[in-house]
Amino acid sequence: MDFYEVIGLVAAFITTASFLPQVFKTYKTKDTSGLSLTMYTTFFVGIVLWLIYGIHLKSLPMILANSITAISSLFLVIMKLKYK
Amino acid sequence: MDFYEVIGLVAAFITTASFLPQVFKTYKTKDTSGLSLTMYTTFFVGIVLWLIYGIHLKSLPMILANSITAISSLFLVIMKLKYK
Repeated sequence: MDFYEVIGLVAAFITTASFLPQVFKTYKTKDTSGLSLTMYTTFFVGIVLWLIYGIHLKSLPMILANSITAISSLFLVIMKLKYK
Repeated sequence: MDFYEVIGLVAAFITTASFLPQVFKTYKTKDTSGLSLTMYTTFFVGIVLWLIYGIHLKSLPMILANSITAISSLFLVIMKLKYK
């Protein structure tokens, strides 16, 4: 594995990790009042497109990061619809 | 420009655009109480690493999205330090 692939994996880990506290907080409190449905739905669509692009580039960091973030943001959208 | 490059550019536009309302809101209100300094500092570092990785891949969507998001998240860190 080359140097830049490691940079990409660290980037994937950091940005994915910075998104997870919101997911855990929402799961725990069921409080979705601070979440914008439009924003998270749009964000989810964007992440799915990044995932498609990452698969095309055969980039492991992009596939990993965007898979986890797609699932997480879809989860937030579902929580918002369920508990609004 | 091929199909996947367009997918990447749309992804870049969407995820960058979903980040900007926070930036404008913070600039306008100077209210940084809801922002986590640790989260945004960590996020900034992650985005800079994505930018380095994107430059390595010669990916225009990654370079564009991560440049704008790096500047935006650095701006939020500076606002947090200034108005905390």
